Amino acid sequence: MAHPVEKLTSLQNPRIKQLVKLRDRRPRDEAGVFLVEGYREIRRALEKNIKLQELYYAPDWFLGENEPALIAQAQAAGAKLFELTKDTFAKVAYRERPDGLLAVAPQWRRSLADLDRLLDGQRETGAYPGSMVPATLTPFVLVVEAIEKPGNLGTILRSADAAGCDAVIVCDPVTDIFNPNVVRASTGVLFSVPLVVEESARVLTWLRGRHIRTVATTPAAQTLYTAADLRGPLAVIMGSEQYGLSEFWLNNSDLPVRIPMAGQADSLNVAMATIITLFEAVRQRS
Amino acid sequence: MAHPVEKLTSLQNPRIKQLVKLRDRRPRDEAGVFLVEGYREIRRALEKNIKLQELYYAPDWFLGENEPALIAQAQAAGAKLFELTKDTFAKVAYRERPDGLLAVAPQWRRSLADLDRLLDGQRETGAYPGSMVPATLTPFVLVVEAIEKPGNLGTILRSADAAGCDAVIVCDPVTDIFNPNVVRASTGVLFSVPLVVEESARVLTWLRGRHIRTVATTPAAQTLYTAADLRGPLAVIMGSEQYGLSEFWLNNSDLPVRIPMAGQADSLNVAMATIITLFEAVRQRS
Repeated sequence: MAHPVEKLTSLQNPRIKQLVKLRDRRPRDEAGVFLVEGYREIRRALEKNIKLQELYYAPDWFLGENEPALIAQAQAAGAKLFELTKDTFAKVAYRERPDGLLAVAPQWRRSLADLDRLLDGQRETGAYPGSMVPATLTPFVLVVEAIEKPGNLGTILRSADAAGCDAVIVCDPVTDIFNPNVVRASTGVLFSVPLVVEESARVLTWLRGRHIRTVATTPAAQTLYTAADLRGPLAVIMGSEQYGLSEFWLNNSDLPVRIPMAGQADSLNVAMATIITLFEAVRQRS
Repeated sequence: MAHPVEKLTSLQNPRIKQLVKLRDRRPRDEAGVFLVEGYREIRRALEKNIKLQELYYAPDWFLGENEPALIAQAQAAGAKLFELTKDTFAKVAYRERPDGLLAVAPQWRRSLADLDRLLDGQRETGAYPGSMVPATLTPFVLVVEAIEKPGNLGTILRSADAAGCDAVIVCDPVTDIFNPNVVRASTGVLFSVPLVVEESARVLTWLRGRHIRTVATTPAAQTLYTAADLRGPLAVIMGSEQYGLSEFWLNNSDLPVRIPMAGQADSLNVAMATIITLFEAVRQRS
């Protein structure tokens, strides 16, 4: 490889200690970075032009034969490389079964103004290097409130990606979008789906300003989600796992809808309710 | 409580060792039992008249105040009680954050003949004490092939419950339906949704014998799942996580359908594809 690779063998190395700290939100936010672990996730980050700052690897953990090519690709894209011993990597790995690859990437922030530019079809410039979605005249947005479980947030991002949502807006977040479990559960969709974190009131103002209809799922609604018109500019609003929709969105959404439930009351969790609603919208909009 | 409770304090106690063994399939099958851990899951098992054989509890781990009532209910239903110390329970607990409750329940087996009786509206007698679903003239069945991840199988069972499926048939299983992670991820639906494990060829013969139409999802299909007629007697066939549908079901299903995908190719996993398809069927059938 082009540059000499620093080898880290001591568990006392400050870089090793910092990598472990980055599992927690505060050190992540202070450093403005987050962890991307695993071959698939790192490959996706590179595909989406995420500028990996550092790549830590341990050949003793490699599962396949493509790792050297990925490492070279990361280095070519500007990542500083560090080779770790088996034990040292075991210390920094977040996963139970590591595959010997762990990167540090810069966090980014998107605003509602960024979404405006996106929806208006203007190319973005600036910090976030991710892919662009096509400009759309009939926005299709997912708004999620206060999701607690990183795994659920990751699954929800995958659903939004599969359904072709233009953006996901996370209101009043409990879970950091850069939590390692979000990165993992999203299978890299975090790097491509436009994602904004913003307060509910500002989101509502923004949606109204763009004449985007808000449809919120709640078991208390009269209208079935399949009976609602989900065409046109649409924001699907989903509540939190434990408390459902907040009073704010219950009171301010244009149309509350419900999903019919045949079995026990909690068979559908928020991630499952989200995908059902999004794909009904896809059906109606196609 | 009515009977004296045996107290277990030693990690060397044979019962403690057996509980740890029951995490693995062979000892489970040999003993004909499985583990039900956690307040919610045990409560659901009791609600569905599952005859818990033993209930192990450790007050040091209790999270709420309702545990004694649940323990008394289990005892009244015939479970033998064992009180454990904090350390002993930590040894037998399967979960990372135990809540001090772990039961041993008998396994059951359902056959296609059982499903015949169920669909024909005859009340079952015999080993399985779970709830009955209403007799139906237009069966709605989910068939899953070789699901590998217990969490996916649990989620799929929840989806089938929420969609009101009459039964779930698991073909050529990789995952034991009595795996502790299936019990957990199903949130107790395992105790209520009629579930049959059977070879694919026998399942196909059974479906054809009952004139149940087979609709199989595969990315290679021409027909969109929303364009297919999902009313009438219906079996939705889902492939495995890694390999998708087998040649057998690809060749023998009445209609292959696909789910449209806007984003990256693997955004929808098998559990997500299942719930999308089942709820489209619910929409059409309502």
